[in-house]
Amino acid sequence: MKQLSDIGLIGLAVMGENLVLNMESKGFQVSVYNRSTDKVDAFLADRAKGKKIMGTYSVEEFVKSLERPRKVMMMIKAGAAVDQTIESVLPYLEPGDIIIDGGNTHFPDTNRRVAYVESKGFHYIGAGVSGGEEGALLGPSIMPGGSVKAWPVVKPIFQSIAAKVEDGTPCCDWVGENGAGHFVKMVHNGIEYGDMQMITEVYHIMKELLGMSADEMHQVFKEWNNGDLDSYLIEITRDILAYKDTDGTPLVDKILDTAGQKGTGKWTGVVALDLGIPLTLIGEAVFARCLSAIKDERVAASKVLSGPAVAFAGDKKQFIDDLKQALYASKIISYAQGYELMRAAAAEYGWQLNYGGIALMWRGGCIIRSAFLGKIKEAFDKQPNLNNLLLDPFFNEKVTQAQAGWRRVIAAATLNGIPAPAMSSALTYFDGYRSERLPANLLQAQRDYFGAHTYERIDRPRGEFFHTNWTGRGGSTASTTYNV
Amino acid sequence: MKQLSDIGLIGLAVMGENLVLNMESKGFQVSVYNRSTDKVDAFLADRAKGKKIMGTYSVEEFVKSLERPRKVMMMIKAGAAVDQTIESVLPYLEPGDIIIDGGNTHFPDTNRRVAYVESKGFHYIGAGVSGGEEGALLGPSIMPGGSVKAWPVVKPIFQSIAAKVEDGTPCCDWVGENGAGHFVKMVHNGIEYGDMQMITEVYHIMKELLGMSADEMHQVFKEWNNGDLDSYLIEITRDILAYKDTDGTPLVDKILDTAGQKGTGKWTGVVALDLGIPLTLIGEAVFARCLSAIKDERVAASKVLSGPAVAFAGDKKQFIDDLKQALYASKIISYAQGYELMRAAAAEYGWQLNYGGIALMWRGGCIIRSAFLGKIKEAFDKQPNLNNLLLDPFFNEKVTQAQAGWRRVIAAATLNGIPAPAMSSALTYFDGYRSERLPANLLQAQRDYFGAHTYERIDRPRGEFFHTNWTGRGGSTASTTYNV
Repeated sequence: MKQLSDIGLIGLAVMGENLVLNMESKGFQVSVYNRSTDKVDAFLADRAKGKKIMGTYSVEEFVKSLERPRKVMMMIKAGAAVDQTIESVLPYLEPGDIIIDGGNTHFPDTNRRVAYVESKGFHYIGAGVSGGEEGALLGPSIMPGGSVKAWPVVKPIFQSIAAKVEDGTPCCDWVGENGAGHFVKMVHNGIEYGDMQMITEVYHIMKELLGMSADEMHQVFKEWNNGDLDSYLIEITRDILAYKDTDGTPLVDKILDTAGQKGTGKWTGVVALDLGIPLTLIGEAVFARCLSAIKDERVAASKVLSGPAVAFAGDKKQFIDDLKQALYASKIISYAQGYELMRAAAAEYGWQLNYGGIALMWRGGCIIRSAFLGKIKEAFDKQPNLNNLLLDPFFNEKVTQAQAGWRRVIAAATLNGIPAPAMSSALTYFDGYRSERLPANLLQAQRDYFGAHTYERIDRPRGEFFHTNWTGRGGSTASTTYNV
Repeated sequence: MKQLSDIGLIGLAVMGENLVLNMESKGFQVSVYNRSTDKVDAFLADRAKGKKIMGTYSVEEFVKSLERPRKVMMMIKAGAAVDQTIESVLPYLEPGDIIIDGGNTHFPDTNRRVAYVESKGFHYIGAGVSGGEEGALLGPSIMPGGSVKAWPVVKPIFQSIAAKVEDGTPCCDWVGENGAGHFVKMVHNGIEYGDMQMITEVYHIMKELLGMSADEMHQVFKEWNNGDLDSYLIEITRDILAYKDTDGTPLVDKILDTAGQKGTGKWTGVVALDLGIPLTLIGEAVFARCLSAIKDERVAASKVLSGPAVAFAGDKKQFIDDLKQALYASKIISYAQGYELMRAAAAEYGWQLNYGGIALMWRGGCIIRSAFLGKIKEAFDKQPNLNNLLLDPFFNEKVTQAQAGWRRVIAAATLNGIPAPAMSSALTYFDGYRSERLPANLLQAQRDYFGAHTYERIDRPRGEFFHTNWTGRGGSTASTTYNV
């Protein structure tokens, strides 16, 4: 063991421990600290035993055990604990030292903390880390942003412990200024909500409309995982569907249908509303979790609200392929919307985001890793300023091929009373996005009618505003303070 | 003119002027003040001429011109101007005096201001005012909340100037504590976004799928306005469709299809996400406005993204009735969701909301006024603690009757590539809400698989959490800090 460690980590919950073991396995010596120091002892006595992992029992001891420039990484609960830990570490830092937050912090907090820690003369990195426990141990996706001067210092460690794609490229690169890393991680989580919701909708339709067993569905997901849909979430769905409870029946059937959430999907929806980006699929996915959570209310409602008789009359094999098309097309929409959100955020916050690089970071290690992300990387390699994924020739062709099946699935779900909110909203977005003319002209007429909000005309240049005295009563003054 | 006025109003934009004229017409003497005092002169010389309206030229003169307890009403731009005006008024107030904010303030600001002004020994009311310019003049819907002790003092004026329903009941009653009045106004505006979006979707389908002219649509909306759908927005849509431009063609066809928004719909969506309430229809309505706003991007997309050929083959008359059913059923969903949101907010903020009273306040005067709201009032009169509007026998029967046509409309829109995001999301919500079992069991399995988030079981009591080591690798420790 060297006298000074290469990096230090505060917070020995599962993710923290696994990251430490990952770093150590790559040749780095790691100091660890935890507020409840018995966790330090427990870790050293068990998983860290015999490894280049140095236990410390005070913040001062911890910081002083690190080689300069110090890399102090926090893997702790987001919120006040992060601010407190920063304060506890600051007195012991020296110029050039770096604090890293690897937790699930909301990006505005990271924006604030980068400015604060830099004002004290040090560096600060907010790094999104995805991949769950296993990813942390074996190679997560890491999305760092903040003090750009600190990047060369942490880069070797981060890229070393990160997941790698087939050609060895690490799923970790610099994202951007301030909270850009945590922002991109937030979008990742929102997309994850969407991906998961779409899969459950397909599962629901297979089960309720096609009457498929868990084993039959397992086979389909297994097949899908070998094609365009190849992804971690399809893979684990395949495995989950095959997993048997102790009584030999599928465990998934025994699980209560109330989804939990920890807020990152919600954040994504809120930011989309704030930035005015139609992130409909993720929005519906978040709301679907909310609806799943009110189980008692649904059970009561199911007894009094009737729906249509479920009846499938078509070609089952064909319809399973339609489902695949619906899933793939909806996924394109979800990522197109997520990228629109990142583009809007970059403009709003002045970040230079590398969109292809982000796809690469998500390509491996994290929950949404997929072959699909490789295609997104290619799209941005070809057109770095691509406005919307749907405009990329590859995705345009894919969505064009998929759309007949996609429409059949949504129509069948609609007529049979099986909810597919995410895939349905993806389709209405697609049809809206490709509409030269939407019916918002009527909406503008309404707003002008009741609130004198004015409108523009198709036969006049943009920026000229008109008000009509629709009723012949009232004034012809345009509204200024009344907001609708 | 009396020496002291009954009430004073600050802010002489259109809404303020009209409210003053409304109050004066009901026998109240009103003092007015505006920061740019030339507006006071202009008002006195024109619309206020010969009326019991007293112009004042400083805040001190204004406040001192009011009878005690003073009622100082602000009709100014929401935001910092409200705080500044409060500060400018406070030095001249005496115990029992009341400040009223009738602007479009976001309710957390009103929560804060009620506490602040009460801490200074005075009363504060945040009142949502809806109805646009014409409503302000002839009778708006007024939704007051805040210092309950102030309510008996302002009640005679507010209920006198408010709109009245058929039996003379005013569309104004006490909403609740703190920002409850502005909260309910915000939900009103969100619902208004939804109502408008649904109507534009029906219009879009009539136009694109059925090939109807503005005149034909005018006839249909005229007919609908005499039935269950009788409402202000249907009425103005009827009128808009009949309105001809100077060249004799329908003006609506000349209006640019980019909807504006001022943020209140967005607020509603954000609050719904924060409180975990699936407010899908309003969410889609807000996002639809965002999508309409990126006109240039849509025009470009329309040239490269193709959709299905539009072809309507059924019975046009029948389908128009289906559209009516779809609109009515979607409207039930939207209000059911809005009421769920108010119920959640009441629980969160400790408000005692009178749900029937809220329906009554919206029954007249405001943009969403409708016969429909009378039915909501009846539903809450019968069951004040009704969980969800869909569970009320009347609405249950209505939605049951409507659902076949509703499903046909969504299926046809889906297959023909015409976006109907609000009505589609309403249907997926309905199908989700009436589902005893949703596919969130698979989602919980996924979360447990990659994040050890645990799950509950249908064959075990709620509150018991299980974790499965799905892979045979990794640990059996449940996740604590990793959030997804």
